[in-house]
Amino acid sequence: MPNVAQKLIAAHLVAGEPTPGTEIGLRIDQTLTQDATGTMVMLELEALGLDRVRTEVSAQYVDHNLVQADELNMADHLFLRSACRRFGIWYSGPGNGVSHPTHMQHFGVPGKTLIGSDSHTCAAGCLGMLAIGVGGLEVAMAMAGQPLFVRMPRIWGVRLTGELPPWVSAKDVILEMLRRHGVGGGVDKIIEYHGPGLAGLTAMDRHVIANMGAELGATATVFPADDQVAAFLRGQGREADFSELLADPDARYDLTDEIDLSTLEPLIAAPQSPGNVTPVRDVAGEPVHQVVVGSSANPGLRDAAVVAAILAGRRTHPQVSLDVNPASRQTLAELTTMGATLDLVRAGARLHQTGCLGCIGMGQAPAIGRNSLRTFPRNFPGRSGTHDDQVWLCSPETAAAAALTGQITDPRDLPALLGVDQPRVRLPEPMPGIAVLEPPLPPAEAATVELDKAPSIGRLPDLDPLPDRLDLPIALRLGDDISTDEIMPAGARALPHRSDITRLADFVFEQVEHGYADRVRALGPHAIIAGNNYGQGSSREHAAIAPRYLGLRLVVARSYARIHWQNLANFGILALEFADPADYDRLAAGDVLTIDDVRTAVQAGPELTASTQDGRELRLRHRLSPRQIAMVLAGGQIPLLRESEAR
Amino acid sequence: MPNVAQKLIAAHLVAGEPTPGTEIGLRIDQTLTQDATGTMVMLELEALGLDRVRTEVSAQYVDHNLVQADELNMADHLFLRSACRRFGIWYSGPGNGVSHPTHMQHFGVPGKTLIGSDSHTCAAGCLGMLAIGVGGLEVAMAMAGQPLFVRMPRIWGVRLTGELPPWVSAKDVILEMLRRHGVGGGVDKIIEYHGPGLAGLTAMDRHVIANMGAELGATATVFPADDQVAAFLRGQGREADFSELLADPDARYDLTDEIDLSTLEPLIAAPQSPGNVTPVRDVAGEPVHQVVVGSSANPGLRDAAVVAAILAGRRTHPQVSLDVNPASRQTLAELTTMGATLDLVRAGARLHQTGCLGCIGMGQAPAIGRNSLRTFPRNFPGRSGTHDDQVWLCSPETAAAAALTGQITDPRDLPALLGVDQPRVRLPEPMPGIAVLEPPLPPAEAATVELDKAPSIGRLPDLDPLPDRLDLPIALRLGDDISTDEIMPAGARALPHRSDITRLADFVFEQVEHGYADRVRALGPHAIIAGNNYGQGSSREHAAIAPRYLGLRLVVARSYARIHWQNLANFGILALEFADPADYDRLAAGDVLTIDDVRTAVQAGPELTASTQDGRELRLRHRLSPRQIAMVLAGGQIPLLRESEAR
Repeated sequence: MPNVAQKLIAAHLVAGEPTPGTEIGLRIDQTLTQDATGTMVMLELEALGLDRVRTEVSAQYVDHNLVQADELNMADHLFLRSACRRFGIWYSGPGNGVSHPTHMQHFGVPGKTLIGSDSHTCAAGCLGMLAIGVGGLEVAMAMAGQPLFVRMPRIWGVRLTGELPPWVSAKDVILEMLRRHGVGGGVDKIIEYHGPGLAGLTAMDRHVIANMGAELGATATVFPADDQVAAFLRGQGREADFSELLADPDARYDLTDEIDLSTLEPLIAAPQSPGNVTPVRDVAGEPVHQVVVGSSANPGLRDAAVVAAILAGRRTHPQVSLDVNPASRQTLAELTTMGATLDLVRAGARLHQTGCLGCIGMGQAPAIGRNSLRTFPRNFPGRSGTHDDQVWLCSPETAAAAALTGQITDPRDLPALLGVDQPRVRLPEPMPGIAVLEPPLPPAEAATVELDKAPSIGRLPDLDPLPDRLDLPIALRLGDDISTDEIMPAGARALPHRSDITRLADFVFEQVEHGYADRVRALGPHAIIAGNNYGQGSSREHAAIAPRYLGLRLVVARSYARIHWQNLANFGILALEFADPADYDRLAAGDVLTIDDVRTAVQAGPELTASTQDGRELRLRHRLSPRQIAMVLAGGQIPLLRESEAR
Repeated sequence: MPNVAQKLIAAHLVAGEPTPGTEIGLRIDQTLTQDATGTMVMLELEALGLDRVRTEVSAQYVDHNLVQADELNMADHLFLRSACRRFGIWYSGPGNGVSHPTHMQHFGVPGKTLIGSDSHTCAAGCLGMLAIGVGGLEVAMAMAGQPLFVRMPRIWGVRLTGELPPWVSAKDVILEMLRRHGVGGGVDKIIEYHGPGLAGLTAMDRHVIANMGAELGATATVFPADDQVAAFLRGQGREADFSELLADPDARYDLTDEIDLSTLEPLIAAPQSPGNVTPVRDVAGEPVHQVVVGSSANPGLRDAAVVAAILAGRRTHPQVSLDVNPASRQTLAELTTMGATLDLVRAGARLHQTGCLGCIGMGQAPAIGRNSLRTFPRNFPGRSGTHDDQVWLCSPETAAAAALTGQITDPRDLPALLGVDQPRVRLPEPMPGIAVLEPPLPPAEAATVELDKAPSIGRLPDLDPLPDRLDLPIALRLGDDISTDEIMPAGARALPHRSDITRLADFVFEQVEHGYADRVRALGPHAIIAGNNYGQGSSREHAAIAPRYLGLRLVVARSYARIHWQNLANFGILALEFADPADYDRLAAGDVLTIDDVRTAVQAGPELTASTQDGRELRLRHRLSPRQIAMVLAGGQIPLLRESEAR
């Protein structure tokens, strides 16, 4: 009777009961980290005094900070490599590509659990893994052998039927999910795809769909480990890693939905949210100045090759910069072998190094107000590196059409417009083993490795316990769906400082208010209030650490995105919700919130009362588990561990 | 009896006599601009009120600012494209590659003159062109049909004999020239290579040698247009553009030197000057963390392919990041066709977009104090983007050896060390016509084009005339060989602001003194003093405009690099020399220099007298032509033109 998600959870449950809404503990088999979050994870391992990771596989990827505008990026790379050698971690250096497809290609194993300090870690659900994006500190704890604690999600069965029509591909499936359910539609849910429509979706197609489960806010996305997964692993020379994992025939789901793939059409997410989905035909004709193909949302060979097939023998429109970012070394090699790299270069593409690049705002920023079409997962304001950016998210087919015409174009119109035949891509044999991966050192050798710490590699800030009384001015009042890109920007200016919180903190809320960091430094301890889905998007724990370093002690929101909510607890920031959502409208920046005996109140139950400087009373509540309460009281997970060691 | 240089000059002479040291005017057939200097050139064309360029070919390349960390780069690209459409200029967008090889491939014609707002424009001398790097304003004047004025250089005949030994290539020839003569060795000279050794050097090999003539400070480098040049043009499908141009058999030279190619060995320029040349074997064993292959100094297919051939079937050393920057779209296509791209990717290389990239500090910055070996032309301090960088310049063979061993390695040791055979590269048929070049619009259509000016596109600052009396504090006292990279840094932080002098000026002398711009803004009009070869390196006129905008009116140096000396005049900065070089030692920052009746004195003759605040007298002199004096008095070339229009 269990579905795939329930089987995965049952096989890894070490604490709690799998009842939706209650906290459970899961054994973690694998971890991944990337460089933008990984340096902090390695500093946390150091702070924890870890000797060697306890997981089956832990892998560190360098895929974010690849621009190297100054010495900081390469200092991070050298530090990460030394930490991998020290702690028994696989190291994938710059040039191997984006963590998610690279991990899938080399380490993905059906039935395993994976957590990663990157919100798109969920992509590995395509192979029948339970894969969850979390904060870096939770990855560090898992590396140390601790379970992952999460609120048990509801399981949402999405039945797929039919086959995708010509010019429609996997990206349109996940865009259809976002069209129907929006960026909060998956919160506290695991999405499990099932049904006869799966047969036509390869493992890499499913990667596209699982990856952008993050944009729905889902805890995870799972697919069964079926023939398509077996075929993928066979191609990677890892048949032995395959084991079937299917839902029982009579499996039940907490929620259900159904998509008839044959009814889908090309879709596009308009600026500036992945949830602003509309049919491409409704916005056709908008001028386009940039098209970017790549990222973990469309990382497979097929997705790059289909663009090459559409462009082969043609030239891109002269007003368009077509940027192609092969997602992994393997994809680039295969693309080159099959002749598609040459087709792209001949057509006018700019072929970039493998990695995340523009998807994380490391270069490729568009001009202000000019439309950029991207096969990326996210288009939050400013994430591209450009203020007032106009980024649209679409399939490779829709991207290729715009590259040829210089305007948003329904790819189904290409045959009539330009005589382009529907692309039929024959993929070559996979070329596994091409990534340059350094395996963990033997323990005796690892123990002798010194961490390679340039002066730019900082240390974790000291965090003090929650005081008995909070008396906090509201520094900022934010709206709905504030992403971690807005809280703690990535991009080419901020990202290189990821290893030094004291410097990185200068960029907190910079896009919301220029000079914010200096203002709240002067203000001292403070609170912020926010609307729904606060902290959506990237898993970066820096969006908790850096504001905390600046004095943030309390957030009151209508609701939270899962990963950020846990990151707030990890770093000792109290995250409360409004008992009456209308109270959000009664508060303003500058008001002062007071909560007496807050340490006692948080432990006594979910209800708290705050008062304002003019005597108004507000009913607030929390959803923290006893484990999380202990963290918040101690000032964060690391002070809590130190306390317990001291006892 | 004339040599190649004399023939080129005679065919283009429109003013003066070709006597070394006197000013001559040359008709200019072609111009090139790149994006880092080109936006200013286009603003100058606008200020000049030009309708359409008067040259045979003017081409604009986008090859420098390719990172796009924010909206500024793409705004520049759009502005440049619109200016090309407006003024009748060829536009080569991002992705086509570095200006010099791309121009050579598409527009290089023996016997023609070319000037470009990039100091490596001299590379085109490989085809029997007279090609000179100059300031942007001189390019703008040439586009407007004006001659180029230069001091007639001496012609330096360098006779080549013999053949290069295995593992030694063209880069080692120019490194040998730098070893012998240093970074000032070519000042006020045209280097003309001749002799039987030329037969073994292809046009692209000669490009390597001509390109780095800039590092010798030479005005130009010329090669004859012989069978090798004919073969190159045939490969490009441009046989019709070939015409033979050889020195007469009894040609004489003002100066002579000779290199027996068979005696050369692998050479390397140590940090932080192209003149610090030493045999590779003398520094073998130094650990290496980065190897970068590419740039206009080694742009040809052969130079990338030889690296691929050495690496084929092997893996790079795990501590090395091997960065490969194909110099042009054509090179990338050819490299891919012959299988070398795949060899590089398999071996562990990071394959980057075509363009200048790390060579101009746009990304690829190494870690502090870690050795980076590059096939680049320059390693001035900080040019890589890293403070305290350790950049070495070498051949592709030496670069490949270090990528395999993780340390500086004489490539001749590779057979014994790793069993690597001497690479024998079979190059495929050239693939011309692959760059995406937009031709000039027809005049009627061009006249209707509006310039696409984002708010980040500034305008030229207003420049006032030279006052009658200079009374200037010395803001800075500099040593020898100060490069324009130190005066006006490029790199990922400063370069995007190239179109707005008010913002760019913040970076002036930033590496020499943090906060310099603010200090001299407060100081008001000021002078600086410098040692020998002041302003070497890049042609960027921003190194004159931005300091002038900050208040610089007078430079006193022991000697100047050619391009910067002209740029100072172009923007109304008086450039003087010490009559007694020892006076340099008698001045300090903070001293005040006074020159009375300076306008009269400059016109009266080359000698001037200055006094210091404590009554010391200094004898100074200038080498300005009457034409340059008029510019300096008017405040610069553009105010001078405005004056003459007002008359």
